[in-house]
Amino acid sequence: MAAAHERYDAVIVGAGPFGLLLSTCLARWGYKIKHIDNRPEPTPTGRADGIQPRSLDLLRNMGLKRAIMAHDPAKVYEVAFWDPSKDGIYRTGTWASCPRFIDARYPFTTLLHQGLIERVFIDDMEKNGAKVQRPWTITGFKNDGWDSTYPVEVNLERLDGGVTETVRAKYLFDGEGARSFVRTQLKIPIHHKDPIAHVWGVMDGVVRTDFPDIKMKCTIHSDAGSIMVIPRENNMVRLYIQIASSTDPNWDPRKTATVEEVQTAAKKILKPYYISWDRVEWYSVYPIGQGIAERYTLDERVFMGGDVCHTHSPKAGQGMNTAFLDAQNLAWKIHAVESGFAERSILKSYESERKAIAENLLNFDAAYAKLFSQRLPSAGEVKTANADSPTEENQFVKTFKASCEFTSGYGVAYNENIFNWSPSHPARSDLFLSEAQGTTNLRTGRILSNANVTRVADANVVHLEQEIPLNGSFRIYVFGGKPSLNMQAINDFASNLTKPGSFYTAYLYKDLEAISYHEKHNPHSAFFTLATILNARRSDIEPEKLLPHVLARYRTHIYADDIWDANLPEAKAAAHAKMGFNQDRGAVVIVRPDGYVGCVVRLVEGSGSIDALNEYFGSFVAKQLGRSARKTVGFEERAML
Amino acid sequence: MAAAHERYDAVIVGAGPFGLLLSTCLARWGYKIKHIDNRPEPTPTGRADGIQPRSLDLLRNMGLKRAIMAHDPAKVYEVAFWDPSKDGIYRTGTWASCPRFIDARYPFTTLLHQGLIERVFIDDMEKNGAKVQRPWTITGFKNDGWDSTYPVEVNLERLDGGVTETVRAKYLFDGEGARSFVRTQLKIPIHHKDPIAHVWGVMDGVVRTDFPDIKMKCTIHSDAGSIMVIPRENNMVRLYIQIASSTDPNWDPRKTATVEEVQTAAKKILKPYYISWDRVEWYSVYPIGQGIAERYTLDERVFMGGDVCHTHSPKAGQGMNTAFLDAQNLAWKIHAVESGFAERSILKSYESERKAIAENLLNFDAAYAKLFSQRLPSAGEVKTANADSPTEENQFVKTFKASCEFTSGYGVAYNENIFNWSPSHPARSDLFLSEAQGTTNLRTGRILSNANVTRVADANVVHLEQEIPLNGSFRIYVFGGKPSLNMQAINDFASNLTKPGSFYTAYLYKDLEAISYHEKHNPHSAFFTLATILNARRSDIEPEKLLPHVLARYRTHIYADDIWDANLPEAKAAAHAKMGFNQDRGAVVIVRPDGYVGCVVRLVEGSGSIDALNEYFGSFVAKQLGRSARKTVGFEERAML
Repeated sequence: MAAAHERYDAVIVGAGPFGLLLSTCLARWGYKIKHIDNRPEPTPTGRADGIQPRSLDLLRNMGLKRAIMAHDPAKVYEVAFWDPSKDGIYRTGTWASCPRFIDARYPFTTLLHQGLIERVFIDDMEKNGAKVQRPWTITGFKNDGWDSTYPVEVNLERLDGGVTETVRAKYLFDGEGARSFVRTQLKIPIHHKDPIAHVWGVMDGVVRTDFPDIKMKCTIHSDAGSIMVIPRENNMVRLYIQIASSTDPNWDPRKTATVEEVQTAAKKILKPYYISWDRVEWYSVYPIGQGIAERYTLDERVFMGGDVCHTHSPKAGQGMNTAFLDAQNLAWKIHAVESGFAERSILKSYESERKAIAENLLNFDAAYAKLFSQRLPSAGEVKTANADSPTEENQFVKTFKASCEFTSGYGVAYNENIFNWSPSHPARSDLFLSEAQGTTNLRTGRILSNANVTRVADANVVHLEQEIPLNGSFRIYVFGGKPSLNMQAINDFASNLTKPGSFYTAYLYKDLEAISYHEKHNPHSAFFTLATILNARRSDIEPEKLLPHVLARYRTHIYADDIWDANLPEAKAAAHAKMGFNQDRGAVVIVRPDGYVGCVVRLVEGSGSIDALNEYFGSFVAKQLGRSARKTVGFEERAML
Repeated sequence: MAAAHERYDAVIVGAGPFGLLLSTCLARWGYKIKHIDNRPEPTPTGRADGIQPRSLDLLRNMGLKRAIMAHDPAKVYEVAFWDPSKDGIYRTGTWASCPRFIDARYPFTTLLHQGLIERVFIDDMEKNGAKVQRPWTITGFKNDGWDSTYPVEVNLERLDGGVTETVRAKYLFDGEGARSFVRTQLKIPIHHKDPIAHVWGVMDGVVRTDFPDIKMKCTIHSDAGSIMVIPRENNMVRLYIQIASSTDPNWDPRKTATVEEVQTAAKKILKPYYISWDRVEWYSVYPIGQGIAERYTLDERVFMGGDVCHTHSPKAGQGMNTAFLDAQNLAWKIHAVESGFAERSILKSYESERKAIAENLLNFDAAYAKLFSQRLPSAGEVKTANADSPTEENQFVKTFKASCEFTSGYGVAYNENIFNWSPSHPARSDLFLSEAQGTTNLRTGRILSNANVTRVADANVVHLEQEIPLNGSFRIYVFGGKPSLNMQAINDFASNLTKPGSFYTAYLYKDLEAISYHEKHNPHSAFFTLATILNARRSDIEPEKLLPHVLARYRTHIYADDIWDANLPEAKAAAHAKMGFNQDRGAVVIVRPDGYVGCVVRLVEGSGSIDALNEYFGSFVAKQLGRSARKTVGFEERAML
C-alpha cells in the first residue's frame, strides 16, 4: 500500500521566507517538490519587512533583486536616536545603519511588505514548475526508512476540504514559523537566551507629522514610553510600541492595546511634534520571546529553519534575513549530496553553522540592549563608530560596530569546519593562505569581499562577487597576477586542474560534447565555475590566445583588474590588492556555492596549488581524488568548444 | 455634420519612439489622445535598438528605466576598431563609447530590441487609459480652423476592415517614420547633407566565433569589406554590412544580398577568426540617405518628429534617441501652452531647437566619417581622447570628443532663446550667471550636471538631477549655500517668491487646500517644483525649523550637500562646487521641464533674485507678472499644510 504513495525529493511546509527561498533554489535545480502552506493566500499585509544589506546581495545573486526594487521599497541608510528632554524629546544622534567600514555593496536596509517579497519567490518558483498548495497542513511524519531512498513519510491534510494525502520524500523541510508542528512532534525544546519577554504592538499606516525623522528608522525614548519608527513603501510608516514586558510589576503576557490606545500613546511620546493618521493599514499585537531551538535536525532528513528555530525581537529586524540565510545554507548542501558531489555527512554542518549564527545574534542583541539601557552614546562615540578608521574604541563603539556587522548580515562568520579552511583542516598544504597569518585579507567562513573589475568579453564594469549566480556550484576565482610574469603558474594550475584524479576532472560531465557552446557558468561540470582575474588592461587580454583553454572557455568570466579604487589609490590591480594578494602573483580563492570563502591558496608554478585544492575538496567530496581508479581520458584531450 | 466628430486634444500617428514617448507624456498629464499605428502589432523584431546614455537619463526621469533593464539588455562601454593586416584584421584600438569627460550617469549604450522598448511605453500608456489603435492609417488632414479650439480635422482608416473615421483635434502629431504621409501632403522637402546614399544589410542572430570583441561594438575594415558589430540581449549579435554605396561605380540603390551572401562576406571579413550562425533572428536590407526635413511644422498645429524629420546612418545609432528627445521637447511645450502657463508662441521653439540638433548631428557624422576615412587614430590619440584632462588636442581628438558628446546625447545644446538665457535674453538683470563669464559651470540649453546629495527626509544618497520627475514642471533648484551665513538671502528669496505678482504666485493652484498633504512634487503649483540644497550636514537640517515654509513644504526635496566627490576632493559642498557656485552663498538654477538648464541667478539678500526670475519667466508665461492686477491674498497667508 505504501508503495502507491507519491514520491518527492522534498516536502516543504510553510511558505514564509525560509520555505520559499529553499523551494526556489530546489525548483531551479530540478528537484521534485511538494510545498504546502496552511494560509489560503500569501501574507496580505504586515509581518516582517526588512531586507538587510547581505540579504540584498543574496537576492541579487539569485536574480531577484530587480523584482524587489520594482516595488519602490523604502531604504534606510541611517538610524536616529531620540531621548527625553524637558520639552519632550530630542535627537541625541543619527548614524549609518550600515557604516562604511562594513564595505557593503548596498549599505541600506530595504523595507517592503512581506507579501510582496513572497510573491517574487512564488513567481520564480512557478517559472520552474513549482507551486505552493494552499491551504494544506502537515498532520504527521516519520523517518521510517521503509524506503531507503525516500525514507520520510509525511501526512498532509487540506484545511478547507478535509482531503488527506500521504507522500514519501527524501527530505522534510519545516518552515512553519514559531508555532511549529514538526518541532513540537520532535520534542525539541526552545531555549531563551534572554529571560525577558515582551508584548509588542505594530501599526502600519499613512501619517501626517512634523516629526523630522518620520522617514528614518528611529528609536524614541520618552517619559511617556518608547516607540520604534520604520519607514515603508507607499508613503507608509510602521510604529512598534512596547505594550508590556516581563519586567513590569504586573506583567501579563496576554496584555493588549487597541489601535486608538497605541495612537494616543504615540502622540504623547512624540511630543512636541504632532502626529495623526490618514489611515491604518494593519495593526497587530504579539508576544515575543527571543529563543533558539536546541536542534535544527535530528536525523538530517527532517530539517527546520527560520522562525521554527529562532525567534527575534522586531527591533533587530533579523527574522526574515536569518530565515533566508538558513535556507540558502541548506539548499546547496542538499544539492551537493543529492547530486552525488559531496558526502552525506556534510548535512550536519547545516545545524552547526546556522545555530551558531542564531546564538551569536541573540547574544549581540542582548549585549547591545543592555549597553543602551545603561547609558547614552556621546556624539563623539557616534562619530567614531561611523568613521572608517576609528582612532579609539571604547566598549560602546566596539559593541555598536559588531552590532552593525550583525544586523547588516556581514557579521555572519561560519566557524572553521570541513568547508571553511583553518590550520586544523585535514588539508595541510603550506600553500593555504589565511587572514590570521596576514597572508590574505579574506576570511574563511565570511562572504567574498566585493570588487569592481572589467569583464573582458564586453568591457562592462561589473561586481566581481556577483558574477557567478547562486546555482549550486563552487566558485573558483583565479587571481592570476600579471600575465607577463605569472603565465607559468597559470598554465601549471590549468594543466594540473585538468589531470585525471583532480577534484575538477573527477566531476566533469560524462558527456561534455552535449553541453551547449553558449553555456556560461558550467561548461565542464555542474559543480564548478572558473573565473580568471588578471592584473592587465582589458585591451591586452585576448583570452583564447593568452590563457589555457580550460580558463578561456569561461568566455564571460575573464576579468581585467583595472578599475581604480578610491580606498586603494596606489594599487595597480585593486581587486588583487583588496583581497591582500601580491598583484604580480595573485592567488586562488575557493568560494562556497553560497558566496562564503572556503579557502585561499597561493598560485604557484608546479602542481602545488592543485594538490592543495585536491586535499581541500577531497575532505568532503563523494569520490576519491588524487588517483585515477581506471584510465580516464584526459580533460584537455576531450573535444570541447 | 462636422460638429458630430469626436474631439481629441491630440491625434498621434505612428507608434514608434517619437509617437510613444509623446503619447506617454500626454496621457500621464491628462490629455485626451487618439493614437494610431498602421502595423497590426508592435515591432516584432529588428529595427533600432541603441539607447544612448542621455536617453537612459530621460527614461529614468520618466520612471521607465527599470522596466527596460528588466530585459537584461546588452551594455556597450567600449568601441573597438579593427583594420586590415596582412593576415586578416587586427585591433587598432578600443575606447570608451562615453568617456569620463562627458560625466554621464550611465556611461554606456543600452541595446535592446525596439519592440521590447515600445512595450514599456505601451504598458505605461495603458496605466493612464491610453492605447494604440491598430492597424489604422491616416488618409487626410487639414487645419481648417472651423473650430478654433479643435482646428485640425483628421481622416483615419482602419486597414483591416475599411472602417473610416473623421475626428477633430487641437494637434496632429506625426511619427510615421521616413515615408510620412503627412510630410508628403505638406510638400515639405528633405535635404540631404551628405549626397552619398548607402544600402545596408542588417542581421540579428546567435553566433559562434573566436573573434574576441563579439560582445563589443566594433567597426571592422578589412580587404574583403567592412562590417559593424553590435551586441544585443539574449546572447545575440547584430551585424551591419554595407552592400552598396552611391560612390560605387555600378551604384544601384535596389541592390540586395541574401542571408547567405552576407554570412559569406562576414566570414571573409573576420578572418583569421571564424564565425558561424546558430540561428538568424532577423535580416533586412534597406537603403539609407541621411537627410533632414526643411520644416518640422508649418502652423504649430501639425507637428512632425523622429524619422519623419531626419534619417540617420545606423552607424551613429541616433534614430531612436533623437526621436525620444524630439518628443520630450514637444510634450512639455504643448502642455505649457494647453494648460495656460505659456504663450502659444513658444511652440515655434520646437522646430528651432530640434532641427538645429538634427543638423548638428548629421554634420558631425559627416565630419567624423571623413576624418576616419582619411587616417587612423594612433594609440596616443585614443588615450588622449579618453583621458579626463587631455594635455593636447589635435583635430582628430577634438572631433572624436565632440562626436562622443553627440552620440551619447550630451552634446545636445539648445541655442539661446526665450528659455535658454544669454545676454541677449529680454531678462537683463545683472544677477544672471553664465558659463561664458565664468560665473557658473552650468550652460544654458544643456542638461543639468549630475550630483550626489543626501535627501534630508530619509538620509538616502540620491542623484539630484533625477529627483524631480518629468511631469511638465519647471524645476527650481535653490542651492542655499551655508545656512549659518546665508539665511537672510534664503528667507528673502522665499518671501519675494511668494509675493503677489511673482511668477510663482501667479500660478498657484486656485484651491490650495484641496491639494493632498502627501503631494511631493507639486504642492503649490502644477508648474513648479522647488528643491533646496544646503551646504550643511544632514543631521543639522531640520527643515520646518530652519527653512521658510514655502521651501520646507517640499518635504522630500531638501538635500544636504555632504557627499564627497572624488573629482572635487577639497570641496565641502561638492554639488555647489560642481555647478561652480560659491559654497557659502549658493545660487538658484531654473531647469526646464525636460531637464535642460534655463537660467542661473545669484542668490542675494533683497528681492533681486526673484526680480530676475520674474523677468525670465515673464518673457514667455501667459500671465503678466510683476504687479498684481487686483489685491490677491498673499501666499504665506493661505493655510497650507
